[in-house]
Amino acid sequence: MPWGTESVSTRSYHERMGTRDRIIDAAEQAIHEFGIAGATTRRIARQAGCSEALLYKHFAGKESLFLAVLLERLPALRPALTRLQASVGQGDVAANLAEFAAAALEFYSKAAAIASGVLADPSLLAGFRTMLADRNAGPHLPILALAEILRAEQQGGRIDAGMDAGAAASMLMGACFHRANLAYYVDLPEEDAAWAAGIATTLIRR
Amino acid sequence: MPWGTESVSTRSYHERMGTRDRIIDAAEQAIHEFGIAGATTRRIARQAGCSEALLYKHFAGKESLFLAVLLERLPALRPALTRLQASVGQGDVAANLAEFAAAALEFYSKAAAIASGVLADPSLLAGFRTMLADRNAGPHLPILALAEILRAEQQGGRIDAGMDAGAAASMLMGACFHRANLAYYVDLPEEDAAWAAGIATTLIRR
Repeated sequence: MPWGTESVSTRSYHERMGTRDRIIDAAEQAIHEFGIAGATTRRIARQAGCSEALLYKHFAGKESLFLAVLLERLPALRPALTRLQASVGQGDVAANLAEFAAAALEFYSKAAAIASGVLADPSLLAGFRTMLADRNAGPHLPILALAEILRAEQQGGRIDAGMDAGAAASMLMGACFHRANLAYYVDLPEEDAAWAAGIATTLIRR
Repeated sequence: MPWGTESVSTRSYHERMGTRDRIIDAAEQAIHEFGIAGATTRRIARQAGCSEALLYKHFAGKESLFLAVLLERLPALRPALTRLQASVGQGDVAANLAEFAAAALEFYSKAAAIASGVLADPSLLAGFRTMLADRNAGPHLPILALAEILRAEQQGGRIDAGMDAGAAASMLMGACFHRANLAYYVDLPEEDAAWAAGIATTLIRR
């Protein structure tokens, strides 16, 4: 009975996905409430309504679970980079970069709880580092993508061809990452949008 | 007997200082080994050879103990800022800034374990935030100090007067802070000194 089989298989597929999603939701919630250190698999499993054994069926460890939260639950940088890429040669370069900086600031602000939690836990960091190397991934990749976009604008003559695009990309992303972290410690005077505009204008001034 | 009294008082002063230093050393060691989350006051006190009660006589809480580690044990940014300030109008501006960037990178790299640990622990962060506000301190202050130095170079005509010194300072410090963090996750291709030189040159290009 193909229909029957298919129906069971589909249901079971959805159930597995449902559990995985519930676990990621629970992890995100636990990190928000207790920090990475307090986001134990026991607490996450209980919140997700599953056993720790089931959690480990879906995720090899905290590393891959937290990476899933980063990649699947946070407002990613990818859409902002795609928008910036699509704007090459169009509109105002500084305004495009300022919009991107504001998006990067928001992303880094949301990612800070996980990123800092991983960095603060030596054994979790070691696992994360290995996982990133295996997947050829890493938090430095957006800098390379931004540098490519800046080079495209240089080729189009809208940004000074003499600017080191790699260094410029490091500075734009770095300023956003730093500010996102600083805001956790102190109240920053300037408004985000005005700050982002100042960064973009200063970066590409001639 | 003034001498006797003085002698006792001096000894007791040194003993108190000795304990405080031992506690800070033990905290630094514990953070290095176990991360902030694992650096419990119990573990730190045992390592320092004192009771937790004595630890709390010297430090109101983990916040002030970790701040003491940051301020008293890490290669501070202050000497690097002082050197840069002293170099205003002298030598090569880009080279001076590159040297400062390398020092900032080293500082942020060493500070990352504590900074991330504080950020990753919601209750520790709340305490830290209050303490910084009370002391009118914070990790954003080096950006303001760097901006002042850049303005002095602008007044001397060695940096383009049209550059937004505040935005430029945010980018230089941000790039260093970001890179120090990235290096914990991935192997970065470029060598630090070459990277710092590229950042400095790009920042003040005309």
